[in-house]
Amino acid sequence: MQICRTIKDIRTFVAKCKAEGQTVGLVPTMGYFHQGHLSLMREAKKSCHRVVVSLFVNPLQFGPREDLAQYPRDFERDSAMAEEVGVDAIFVPPDREMYPEGFCTHVEVTGITDKLCGLSRPGHFLGVTTVVAKLFNIVAPDKAFFGQKDAQQAMVIRRMAADLNMGLEIVVLPIIREEDGLAMSSRNVYLDRDQRRNATVLYRSLCAFREAVDRGEKDAESLRRSITEMIASTPGADIDYVEILSVPNLEPVVLLQGRVMAALAVRFGGTRLIDNIIVEV
Amino acid sequence: MQICRTIKDIRTFVAKCKAEGQTVGLVPTMGYFHQGHLSLMREAKKSCHRVVVSLFVNPLQFGPREDLAQYPRDFERDSAMAEEVGVDAIFVPPDREMYPEGFCTHVEVTGITDKLCGLSRPGHFLGVTTVVAKLFNIVAPDKAFFGQKDAQQAMVIRRMAADLNMGLEIVVLPIIREEDGLAMSSRNVYLDRDQRRNATVLYRSLCAFREAVDRGEKDAESLRRSITEMIASTPGADIDYVEILSVPNLEPVVLLQGRVMAALAVRFGGTRLIDNIIVEV
Repeated sequence: MQICRTIKDIRTFVAKCKAEGQTVGLVPTMGYFHQGHLSLMREAKKSCHRVVVSLFVNPLQFGPREDLAQYPRDFERDSAMAEEVGVDAIFVPPDREMYPEGFCTHVEVTGITDKLCGLSRPGHFLGVTTVVAKLFNIVAPDKAFFGQKDAQQAMVIRRMAADLNMGLEIVVLPIIREEDGLAMSSRNVYLDRDQRRNATVLYRSLCAFREAVDRGEKDAESLRRSITEMIASTPGADIDYVEILSVPNLEPVVLLQGRVMAALAVRFGGTRLIDNIIVEV
Repeated sequence: MQICRTIKDIRTFVAKCKAEGQTVGLVPTMGYFHQGHLSLMREAKKSCHRVVVSLFVNPLQFGPREDLAQYPRDFERDSAMAEEVGVDAIFVPPDREMYPEGFCTHVEVTGITDKLCGLSRPGHFLGVTTVVAKLFNIVAPDKAFFGQKDAQQAMVIRRMAADLNMGLEIVVLPIIREEDGLAMSSRNVYLDRDQRRNATVLYRSLCAFREAVDRGEKDAESLRRSITEMIASTPGADIDYVEILSVPNLEPVVLLQGRVMAALAVRFGGTRLIDNIIVEV
C-alpha cells in the first residue's frame, strides 16, 4: 500500500493506474477508522480495480468552537486497517498541501444545506463540498464512496457532483452499527460509559419511528414528537434537532408520503452524535 | 467541425480524442466572435491536437438589469468563423442543459472578486467561476484559453483552477485591438458612430498612463487621476471605475512597484466597456 503525502504523488499513482486501464475508487475519510469506513473500502475494492483512501481532518468543515483539535487521530492504526482490507494507496496531505497561502475558493451547495446539520453547524457543508471537490479533482476517481450515516452530506455531495458535472459515480452505503444499534462514528470514543449506554436511545427511537410508520402512522409532527420525547427522557441527552424530511430534497413533510427520512443530532456531554433512518410510505 | 448541443455529445467527442492520445484545448466563449476570440482559437490549435470552443451566453453571470436578453448572437456566423480557423468541435448547450431544474451549486472565489468588475457587477464572478468549473469538468481539457481583456476574470479563473486542483493549464493571451486601439469586444456593436469614436479614449488614456510610468511617474493616485480626467472630459463617457492595482493579487497600490495594472470600466450610453494595461516598474 502506497502512502502519498503530496498531491503530485497521489496523482502519479492514479495516472499509472489509469494508464493500465484500471478503474479507481475513492473513499474520502477523516481517519480513525471503524467498521463503517472499512465497509466503504471493501465495497470500493469490489467494484473498482484500485482503491484510494484519503485521510484528511479538514479544518474547513469544523466551526471555531468545534472539536477540530481533539478529533481522534491514529495514523499507524488506520494505515494497518486500510492495508488489511486491500486499499492500494492512502492520500494523507498536510493542511498546507490542501490549503496553501492565499487559498480563497469555495464550492457551495445551497438549499439542502440550510437545514439539519447545516443549520447547527454553519459553514460545515461549505467546508465539506470544497474539500470533496478538491479530492475529486486530485484523484479523478471513477466512483467515490460515502456512508449513509452522514445522510445529508451524501445528498449534498450527490447534488454538487451532478450540478458541476463531475462525471463520477457517487455510491452511498448503509450505516454500520454496533451490536446494540449505535451508529459507528469516530466520535463514539469521546463517550464515557454512561453516555455510551444512554446513546443507544438514538437508534431505538428511530426503530420506534419505523414501527409506528409500519403501523400506519403518517402524521410527521406526531412521529417527530415521539422520537423527541423518547430521547429527551434519557439522562444526559441534549437534542440538537429531530427532523422528518423528504428524500432527496429535504423538504418539510406534513403527512408521510414516498421516501422520508427521520434524522437527528443529539449531544451527550460535549459529544454530538447523528443518526437517521429512511422509510418508504 | 462537430456541433454538440448536449453534455453527453461533447463528452463522447473528447473521450474519442483522448483515447487516440490527443490533447484538447478549450476556448470558453459567449459567442459573437471577433478577432480576439479567433486569436484564442488559433493559439489553442497551435498547442493542442484538438480544439473545443464552448458557446454559451451564461445567464448566471448577468445581473438582473444587465444585457442578457440583448447580448448579440449569431450562431451561423460564429460556427463558420470557428470552422475557418480549424476548431474541431463547438459545444453549444441550451440553458436547461447547463442549469437543469433544481440546480443549486456554485463555485466562488473571494478576495480578488470584491473589486473592479466584481464591485460593479455583484454576482458576476460567481456566475463566471460556476460555469467555467462546469465547462472544465465537462470537457476536461489539457489547456483552457482566455483573453487578457477580461484581466480580472483571467486572474479569478487561475485562482479557482489552482485552489480546486483542476489540473489544467490556464493560458491568457494579449488583448486584440481595432486599428484605432479600441479593445475588441462583442459589445462594441452596441455603440453608435459617435460613441464608437469617443470610446477610443479608453486605450489612449491607458497609453498615456504607460508613457507617464515610462517617464518615471510612480504615484498611483496621480496616475489614476490623469486617466480619469482624460476620460471624464470625453463626451458621453460615464466612468464606472478607474483603478491601479497590483498583479496578480489586485491589492491597492500607492507607489508603483513590480507588476501593476491600470484597469477601467466606462459606459457609453448603455454600453459598458472595459480595458486594461499591465506595466512592470
